[in-house]
Amino acid sequence: MKDLLGRGEAVSVEKALSLILEQPLPAPPTERTGIENACGRVLSADVVSPEDLPGFRRSTMDGYAVHSEDTFGASEGMPAYLALAGEVLMGERPGFRLERGEAAVIPTGGMLPEGADAVVMYEHTNTAGDGMIEVMRAVAPNENVILRGEDVRKGAVVLRSGRRLRPQDVGALAGLGILDVEVFRRPVVAVVSTGDEVVPPQRRGLSPGEVRDINSYNLAGLVMRCGGMPLRKGIIPDDLDRLRAAVNECIREAQMVLISGGSSVGTRDYTAKVIDELGPPGVLFHGVSIKPGKPLIGGLGEGIPLFGLPGHPAAVSVCFETFIGPVLRRLAGEKPDGLPPYRTVKAFFGRNLASPAGREDHVRVAIEQRDDGVWARPVLGKSGLIRTLVEADGIVVVPPHKNGLYEGESVEVRLFNDSPC
Amino acid sequence: MKDLLGRGEAVSVEKALSLILEQPLPAPPTERTGIENACGRVLSADVVSPEDLPGFRRSTMDGYAVHSEDTFGASEGMPAYLALAGEVLMGERPGFRLERGEAAVIPTGGMLPEGADAVVMYEHTNTAGDGMIEVMRAVAPNENVILRGEDVRKGAVVLRSGRRLRPQDVGALAGLGILDVEVFRRPVVAVVSTGDEVVPPQRRGLSPGEVRDINSYNLAGLVMRCGGMPLRKGIIPDDLDRLRAAVNECIREAQMVLISGGSSVGTRDYTAKVIDELGPPGVLFHGVSIKPGKPLIGGLGEGIPLFGLPGHPAAVSVCFETFIGPVLRRLAGEKPDGLPPYRTVKAFFGRNLASPAGREDHVRVAIEQRDDGVWARPVLGKSGLIRTLVEADGIVVVPPHKNGLYEGESVEVRLFNDSPC
Repeated sequence: MKDLLGRGEAVSVEKALSLILEQPLPAPPTERTGIENACGRVLSADVVSPEDLPGFRRSTMDGYAVHSEDTFGASEGMPAYLALAGEVLMGERPGFRLERGEAAVIPTGGMLPEGADAVVMYEHTNTAGDGMIEVMRAVAPNENVILRGEDVRKGAVVLRSGRRLRPQDVGALAGLGILDVEVFRRPVVAVVSTGDEVVPPQRRGLSPGEVRDINSYNLAGLVMRCGGMPLRKGIIPDDLDRLRAAVNECIREAQMVLISGGSSVGTRDYTAKVIDELGPPGVLFHGVSIKPGKPLIGGLGEGIPLFGLPGHPAAVSVCFETFIGPVLRRLAGEKPDGLPPYRTVKAFFGRNLASPAGREDHVRVAIEQRDDGVWARPVLGKSGLIRTLVEADGIVVVPPHKNGLYEGESVEVRLFNDSPC
Repeated sequence: MKDLLGRGEAVSVEKALSLILEQPLPAPPTERTGIENACGRVLSADVVSPEDLPGFRRSTMDGYAVHSEDTFGASEGMPAYLALAGEVLMGERPGFRLERGEAAVIPTGGMLPEGADAVVMYEHTNTAGDGMIEVMRAVAPNENVILRGEDVRKGAVVLRSGRRLRPQDVGALAGLGILDVEVFRRPVVAVVSTGDEVVPPQRRGLSPGEVRDINSYNLAGLVMRCGGMPLRKGIIPDDLDRLRAAVNECIREAQMVLISGGSSVGTRDYTAKVIDELGPPGVLFHGVSIKPGKPLIGGLGEGIPLFGLPGHPAAVSVCFETFIGPVLRRLAGEKPDGLPPYRTVKAFFGRNLASPAGREDHVRVAIEQRDDGVWARPVLGKSGLIRTLVEADGIVVVPPHKNGLYEGESVEVRLFNDSPC
């Protein structure tokens, strides 16, 4: 099947994304995982509370459990006097019932004794001798108390399917006594580098003309940060048959395939051809109005999303953040939350920069703290330079409707992900 | 040794942080790691390029290698005619020398033949028959060429010590043929939960008064996201001797100790006492003008930072992000880059909310997309509720000099970290 849009016609960033995302993607398989390993995983089923939480009426303060009525009208000038009837111990059911006119010492988190319906904070009491206390402030019924089931009711949905679990979500699961959950498996993403000139970084004594494989290392890290499991499939020379064989192996082992390299015309053709042969639909777009990243190929073969990325490392990073990340998150079962996926920082743009209308430019920038504020200095240089990759802190996007940016113009920088895991 | 500031006197957030960060923290131990596992690790030594990169003059375009002088003055109306002398193959040293008046086919990334000093893009050429091509645009010397060493010079520092490696940094290491790097070890962070009422989530059939351990699960996730290795040391009852024994074990096994719980007065005292016994300096602050999190204890014992966190899960999250994260990043060897550590989103605040002057309030909020924009709805509720933890998308900070926030006021929400790994 032919490219839907005709070869070489670049589509907009939005169009390219929607061409992929509107395709039916397979539902990710699921598995159970213990909560110790659940942080960062995506729930594949709603989590329902197995019980009322808390299971008992609990004090939220250090103080005295009381009958609230006994305190009505109490003030510093006219305290209420209550008889000390006992002490609630943490983690234990009180062994007594609180009668009218009585108070019991209770710690934060302690269980209210029967009869009591509120807690007076220590700070609003005095000891009065003879086993009596003074209460200098009235409390309302249920004041400083969490009722049984007030936090979570038995049967209530606590966390919804499609949620990526954060540390506190795992804490909540522990609090409910839920020890394992059903999650989507992390999608396996096959990564192939192509090019006769590309050699593995292990190779000693490079010949002139050879370059080491950068992209599969960059892509492996990007995939991991997006919740996928990278599967590096090595380097394939510019040969149609060998590329076809490699990609066919990939789609049996992975839920997504990334083919990087092929920055020369011939290789790009091979990648498009191989993706197209796997259709329908095959190639969905070939060429996007973005810089860097224009030669990007996106398609779907046997239900598996495939991308052909340009060989320049900077283009790889931009294409991943813009196109591959959103598809991978979908494949991971994540429900979009509409929140910005990047850390950002406001800055003044460092120089005048032209950008043709109709193209979305992703300008690498380094952040500089100057006396007059935060500046985003464009890291220029021929694409493909390693130096521009490591110098940049993030990206400034020049939208297609703009003709460029002015020096001193206020911009938002999308910072690169430098998370520790 | 006594608390430096006197018990009970709450210090400001800045003061608390600087009291810990100005202490001499031990230099983290280092290890070597392969680049496959280096993403997210912190370099403990500068990385120096072992070679010039590229090691040869490389084309940045698909086109023709030429003598630039041969193209001077060329235009569409008056093209320069050059004789096709050969083809440069990817990954190979050209087997010929380019003479004046000649051109050679060259792919992007191909090595320039001797004699050539520029590349003309295909788009600016035509084939003219008889082995000749027309060049319709002049190129300057070195145009569309990356010179040997132009990217990185041999001996240049490519990545500095203290840098947390991003995916593209690892790509750059691969490109330089660097297979392993020296990094700081991930700091081990011991996590202890305390409280007679706290039971492990595995416990079936809770007695009234008992609650399950939420905090050590929340803290384990927070530690991992910050580059540390959590070491869960279980639940210790409210007993001075047992707490002392547990903390002494922790400081032999970990580079940081987090003691959560002790929300009741007695337990807080134990934690402070145990930390103080390990001094000098022992307890550095006990009580911070922050909500939630006021009872936070911070100290240093035998060179190890120790924190006593309030028992409420929301306070645990706030104290971690505000105090423990920055100390942990320091312990991990990370050099501060001054960039915001949070994803943020601008929103309108959802309701009027009072906040006493002098206290920094961290208000949990849920993000809502409404017709008129993005709103941050405060997730209110007694602290300690699990529900408020899972409902909130982030935090709005009310700084100490403000008396609260108005409904509709523009605020910046710090989003919780929901990274996939």
